[in-house]
Amino acid sequence: MPLHISDRTREMPASAIRKLVPLSDAAKAQGVKVFHLNVGAPDIKSPDCAFEAVIKRCSGLHHLSYTNSAGLMELREGLVNRYYKKIGIDIEVSELLVDVAGSEAFAVAMQIAAGPGEEVIVVEPFYTNYQTFAYLNGITLKAVPTDIREGFKIPDIAEFEKLLTPRTRAVLISNPCNPSGKLFSREEMLRIGDFCLKHDLFLISDEVYREFCYTDEPHFSAMNIPGLGQHVILADSVSKRYNLCGARIGCIVSHNKDVMAAALKFAQSRLCPPVLGQWAAIGALDTPQSYFDEVKAEYIRRRDCAVRMLNEMPGVFAPKPYGAFYTVAELPVENAEDFARWMLESFRLDGATTMVTPAASFYKTPGVGRNHARIAYVLEVPELRQALHILGEGLKEYCKMKGYGVA
Amino acid sequence: MPLHISDRTREMPASAIRKLVPLSDAAKAQGVKVFHLNVGAPDIKSPDCAFEAVIKRCSGLHHLSYTNSAGLMELREGLVNRYYKKIGIDIEVSELLVDVAGSEAFAVAMQIAAGPGEEVIVVEPFYTNYQTFAYLNGITLKAVPTDIREGFKIPDIAEFEKLLTPRTRAVLISNPCNPSGKLFSREEMLRIGDFCLKHDLFLISDEVYREFCYTDEPHFSAMNIPGLGQHVILADSVSKRYNLCGARIGCIVSHNKDVMAAALKFAQSRLCPPVLGQWAAIGALDTPQSYFDEVKAEYIRRRDCAVRMLNEMPGVFAPKPYGAFYTVAELPVENAEDFARWMLESFRLDGATTMVTPAASFYKTPGVGRNHARIAYVLEVPELRQALHILGEGLKEYCKMKGYGVA
Repeated sequence: MPLHISDRTREMPASAIRKLVPLSDAAKAQGVKVFHLNVGAPDIKSPDCAFEAVIKRCSGLHHLSYTNSAGLMELREGLVNRYYKKIGIDIEVSELLVDVAGSEAFAVAMQIAAGPGEEVIVVEPFYTNYQTFAYLNGITLKAVPTDIREGFKIPDIAEFEKLLTPRTRAVLISNPCNPSGKLFSREEMLRIGDFCLKHDLFLISDEVYREFCYTDEPHFSAMNIPGLGQHVILADSVSKRYNLCGARIGCIVSHNKDVMAAALKFAQSRLCPPVLGQWAAIGALDTPQSYFDEVKAEYIRRRDCAVRMLNEMPGVFAPKPYGAFYTVAELPVENAEDFARWMLESFRLDGATTMVTPAASFYKTPGVGRNHARIAYVLEVPELRQALHILGEGLKEYCKMKGYGVA
Repeated sequence: MPLHISDRTREMPASAIRKLVPLSDAAKAQGVKVFHLNVGAPDIKSPDCAFEAVIKRCSGLHHLSYTNSAGLMELREGLVNRYYKKIGIDIEVSELLVDVAGSEAFAVAMQIAAGPGEEVIVVEPFYTNYQTFAYLNGITLKAVPTDIREGFKIPDIAEFEKLLTPRTRAVLISNPCNPSGKLFSREEMLRIGDFCLKHDLFLISDEVYREFCYTDEPHFSAMNIPGLGQHVILADSVSKRYNLCGARIGCIVSHNKDVMAAALKFAQSRLCPPVLGQWAAIGALDTPQSYFDEVKAEYIRRRDCAVRMLNEMPGVFAPKPYGAFYTVAELPVENAEDFARWMLESFRLDGATTMVTPAASFYKTPGVGRNHARIAYVLEVPELRQALHILGEGLKEYCKMKGYGVA
């Protein structure tokens, strides 16, 4: 048998979010300015206290050793007492373990809830790496469809019931949702909670965008669904909350002792979470509320700009998102990936172009989302306006070229 | 079906290295001083340049964003040109990708080489987390036995041939070896290389202890086995090299384009390696050779002390290791785990005890290694001497209590 990489690795899906990167690199190499509305990499200032903590602990340091696999006790206690308690999530230190960002937290949560040959129900559209981790672990995702025209609201629970099999082990949801920006309401979460309780399913709740909500009501965490304490596995990010994405610190939280014991086994297999990032996270716990208020106001300005400009483009529909920093827009094209490629390869306005993420890979249902794109509003308003202007002009030219009639 | 964690997660082996930690915590809670010869967590000073780089980059920083999934180009180029080139490993930047420490590098390497139902040959004793990652990915490890009395040398290649099946996809070896401290020679590596070439197998070479070799000859990397360019996947650590274990930076290296493309897919699924740690690693590239010379001299002192004292204990045999900072010792007991537990629970000398790692889990062959313990010589000589004195006294008392006759 000749040397070749494993079948599973070869057939592993490549990142849909990153697969157009070579085209944007090529455009940049030609001197083209590329506006990135494609990745959730915010330009928002991180709190100074995070960096100050790292600087202080690095000064005169003897050596940088491993921490406990579950993370530094100082960070775990800080998260429990100074963050979760404040937002109304009541947990013990033993119910929280530090992970290598939200990515590790939900990958581990999925493996704890389901094994090879088992199934997890997701609400569509969903973060594409769920599919990657499901694939790598032999888990099948079954998707509950939502409707962009209805603002991606949770459908009747009968849609969930339809997907049940004897192998169903969990529901996985991100709230606020990446990619749609949909903020699921208390009522929607309670309905999902009832479903999980009734059928003895885990509820894996990815709440990495919890701090990015644009309503006056507080975010309703799955941790606060009454009676669901043993069922909920919370996958959370610390680094995302404070615009410290590169710190790679998150956590997994559950009242379920078996879940936490299993999470510790996974944690031990990779020795410990990054220590410098843990220090940044400890420092970030000093972040004042005013920081979050300013970030929220800034994202509301960006969202309002993005949603208005998108919906002003002929044939485009984008629901108003109330969370995260994304929206999914329906474009008047057949294939949003083809359009996104064409923007990078062929469309220039004053030497610039705009990059978006084709959204088909956020859907499991065949054919759905082919004309959708995810737009991340992660630029300041003047730049965002420019980026969307270019997108609109590009879209007009693309539709003309393709002969798509838009109003 | 009632709510329970997945079968695969429930049956996942817990860390053999860390499972006695609750007992050592309990001893400490009683005020007992515990000497840790159980974990490879060195107390050696890290180079100041690593921390200086972090401090410099954190000062006045706006925000900490993701890097490329493959790591910062500055770090990749630095590793290729300022580290690997210097030690005679000739690679391009495209043949190296930054990982979340050596742990991620070999976990990914194993998955690239083999999939569910396939097999990987390891040389026994081996690092226990190989077993964890094999288990999680449905890969079976087949172990080639070595003999402690022969200093763990690679046996006749017939021992490898015996384990071949149509499902064999790779050989996995750590050199220098954790846990045995065995430094495999050029001749031994060439024999393994021939075997891989003949049978079209990947050779996954875990060289995270490369900088910890105690001979006058340079370390012979699998990357330099002639004709094996497409077969070798190197799993390496940056943070371990510079005593920056908590930084969690490693890399995966291969001349094989398919391997690197697959490694990038895994990298993208976890977004990016920890950025603060990447900065520490960039700073660490300035470490002068004198640093490594001093570290080497220090470990030679420790090793010589440990090996001498161990072999002076009645009934104990420990071969002299030439790499890493471990040795495996044969103890005059039936069950080294029982002895290690007893030391933590019951044996005190002047209010102190010594913790070692029972080595049975480093072996796959049933029954082998039950009377072996891994000793990490990670303390300064005066402390190490105390720790080993306590171990020796404990061993005497334990053997007396058990009625084991030792000379």
